[in-house]
Amino acid sequence: MSCSSSISMEIADKETSQDNIEQVELLSGVYDHYDGVIVEMKEAMDPKEFGSLLRASLSQWKQLGKRGIWIKLPIELANLIEVVVKEGFDFHHAERNYLMLVRWIAETTNSLPANASHRVGIGAFVMNSNRELLVVQELSGIFRGSGVWKLPTGVVNEGEDICEAAIRELKEETGVDAEFVEVLAFRQSHASYFTKSDLFFVCMLQPCSFDIQKQASEIEAAKWMPIEEYADQPFVKENSGFDYVAKICLAKANDSYIGFSAKPAYSASGKRTYIYSKLEI
Amino acid sequence: MSCSSSISMEIADKETSQDNIEQVELLSGVYDHYDGVIVEMKEAMDPKEFGSLLRASLSQWKQLGKRGIWIKLPIELANLIEVVVKEGFDFHHAERNYLMLVRWIAETTNSLPANASHRVGIGAFVMNSNRELLVVQELSGIFRGSGVWKLPTGVVNEGEDICEAAIRELKEETGVDAEFVEVLAFRQSHASYFTKSDLFFVCMLQPCSFDIQKQASEIEAAKWMPIEEYADQPFVKENSGFDYVAKICLAKANDSYIGFSAKPAYSASGKRTYIYSKLEI
Repeated sequence: MSCSSSISMEIADKETSQDNIEQVELLSGVYDHYDGVIVEMKEAMDPKEFGSLLRASLSQWKQLGKRGIWIKLPIELANLIEVVVKEGFDFHHAERNYLMLVRWIAETTNSLPANASHRVGIGAFVMNSNRELLVVQELSGIFRGSGVWKLPTGVVNEGEDICEAAIRELKEETGVDAEFVEVLAFRQSHASYFTKSDLFFVCMLQPCSFDIQKQASEIEAAKWMPIEEYADQPFVKENSGFDYVAKICLAKANDSYIGFSAKPAYSASGKRTYIYSKLEI
Repeated sequence: MSCSSSISMEIADKETSQDNIEQVELLSGVYDHYDGVIVEMKEAMDPKEFGSLLRASLSQWKQLGKRGIWIKLPIELANLIEVVVKEGFDFHHAERNYLMLVRWIAETTNSLPANASHRVGIGAFVMNSNRELLVVQELSGIFRGSGVWKLPTGVVNEGEDICEAAIRELKEETGVDAEFVEVLAFRQSHASYFTKSDLFFVCMLQPCSFDIQKQASEIEAAKWMPIEEYADQPFVKENSGFDYVAKICLAKANDSYIGFSAKPAYSASGKRTYIYSKLEI
């Protein structure tokens, strides 16, 4: 998906003209590794003029053997969306400020990658030396007013490491500083957020401070609670998912459990990643 | 985010009229758990008429103390997008056939949930009784033509369990049937797919069949390869991420490693989930 080639469509245009094919103005785009073209619209344009350019460009790209055509429209150019849809494009994904549309123009089977499918969350398992767990009650959501004490939880941002998100969310919700230790377990669930799936990582953190300053906007109450008392809550015992996670936390508290620690590594393209595993090297 | 309430806007309208406030036609919507309204447009409408209805509805929803307003437009109604944007809405997410727009109308801080942020993939670690690993060479992507032998990999679909996706992808790419054993490790990387992050789970599978029938469209070659030979490939040794994963696979092959197995459980809302952990109960 990355646009490593910066060949613009003007070059394709020039090559074509050498073959005595009529020279037409085309949309500017970059080529990707998968015989795709990515067009990022930045300037306003008359919808009719844009439609003509798009049609001419599609014809040219087909001749060049391109397969997937991507058009990125900033929200300011929402008036061009209808034109792109009329040329056979589907929506691919959208972020706050832009919409990405895509069309497969090859004769071969469509091999376009799917949209992002998962939201990722963390739960923080934080225990002090008295075997007390840091727990919260939330101001909104399905547990509001239920009296259930929960692990502090939060959403991992796009581009954020799980181990960093756990530390950040714990600090935001409770004011407690901590260091990441391990991922103890994770849960995958579905249709949890519109149609999207959810991955939730239970992270063990070692607290470095103990004074609680709860977040006013999201947290009703926060306290240190004996771990056995947490695990004995009727709600926890009655819900297999919560009960199982509580048992994992108890096993960890009793030193009879090793989770996945985080090891920095580099991907094939040189990006820094974290690999979570049990292997110590 | 789930729409558990089916109270339509007609009811709000009726209550309002009892208070002698002028009765106006409003958009139909459902209320959610977070003081939100979700409007799903299904029928074509004149953009101007739609704009008037939307403005009247926004005013009404504000009076009712609503906070987040969601408008879902199917791709066939792309001509209405511009109208919604002009009323101060942002894009939230898009799938192939629809666009979701959202606007925060309360005075309080915007607490709208973020869009799905991650794509999820699997790599299949499959070994036969001769300590041979099932490996592939891919037809496209950055490894095309490199001669590098890799674990079979694939994308986990929205709504699909990681343990099921690993079995499916292995079967699709190589024709080999297998059973899920464990998640050995996972890797999180960023900006791997437009701006999205990526979670990649290395799954151990136990093969039930051994004849290879490679997928014509994606796989250049597939074979059983001694695991040490796989781990000794220069590319693997030179790339810390690949090298570390190979070491985990070797540790597993030598019976000195336990990953996270999958245990079915139920969420608080009664949905079937899987929890992946090392705890045997």
